[in-house]
Amino acid sequence: MKRIALLVAVAMVAGIAAFTTRASGHTDEAASPIYGVKIPPGYRDWKMIAAAQLLVPGKADQLRAQLGNDIAIKAYREGTIPFPDGSMIAAIHWTRVPSEDNNKVLAGPFPGAQSFVIGSTVNVQFMVKDSKKYAATGGWGFADFKDGKPGDEALHKTCFPCHVPAKDRDYVFTRYAP
Amino acid sequence: MKRIALLVAVAMVAGIAAFTTRASGHTDEAASPIYGVKIPPGYRDWKMIAAAQLLVPGKADQLRAQLGNDIAIKAYREGTIPFPDGSMIAAIHWTRVPSEDNNKVLAGPFPGAQSFVIGSTVNVQFMVKDSKKYAATGGWGFADFKDGKPGDEALHKTCFPCHVPAKDRDYVFTRYAP
Repeated sequence: MKRIALLVAVAMVAGIAAFTTRASGHTDEAASPIYGVKIPPGYRDWKMIAAAQLLVPGKADQLRAQLGNDIAIKAYREGTIPFPDGSMIAAIHWTRVPSEDNNKVLAGPFPGAQSFVIGSTVNVQFMVKDSKKYAATGGWGFADFKDGKPGDEALHKTCFPCHVPAKDRDYVFTRYAP
Repeated sequence: MKRIALLVAVAMVAGIAAFTTRASGHTDEAASPIYGVKIPPGYRDWKMIAAAQLLVPGKADQLRAQLGNDIAIKAYREGTIPFPDGSMIAAIHWTRVPSEDNNKVLAGPFPGAQSFVIGSTVNVQFMVKDSKKYAATGGWGFADFKDGKPGDEALHKTCFPCHVPAKDRDYVFTRYAP
């Protein structure tokens, strides 16, 4: 009986540990297919490049933000193209939801005001610069994670072709916000 | 003639210097009325709290982001309420503009996709926590800057009353994004 209780206790602690690992999103060891890019530790604390919105009627209604590690931010500020090796960019995509709380407050000074805020995370994408390792794809490795798990190979085959139109800006769409 | 040329040259350099100071937004010494809050140096490099959107038909069409200094970010993560003294929060408000470039790229995989990105800065707001200095306004000092210049006293009189509905969250509307 004591042994069973111990096993249950161990299983519970392991379950909590697994949950903690998943929730933090920083210790997941899974890597993207093709590129082998893992979730960079601490990316949520990178500096902000910009914010954006994507609306695909019936399919996606998102607020988005792009963050960069120090190498990427320095390159952005100094207009360095191509981005140097070691540059990393994260794009966080969230659902966009109306804020009833904000709308109530805003209705006084701004009749008809519609405030939208972040709902939950849809996915997180990364671009990692390594001009030798990723020479075939403009020097960038790509990754797309949902709930800490990378998308499949078919998805990751679409990353680079989609970014080719931004070739003049080293395949990076987002511009640095003032 | 030489003297005129010299004067023109000096005026041009001075003009460039003035523009640089304004564009960086970091060296302006002006302070907000009532609260005396200046633009905190380096705020653009603070960590991101969240992103948002505000639409007031015919009046405002904005993408927004909130950034926090290390004290504020730590408090957000740990759920510390009230925010400790020294906490500073910046809210950057930009115009929201459609990205024709992005829409062309997205039209293939996502027909009807509408991408919106940042246009230009509308204003930047700050909340600075000092529970003694700002005891009359929930411990927060407020500031609203346009092009590096603080708004007038009438504008700043509206800051605290507008934030009162968020009293349960120490007068801060924005929630930390995952």
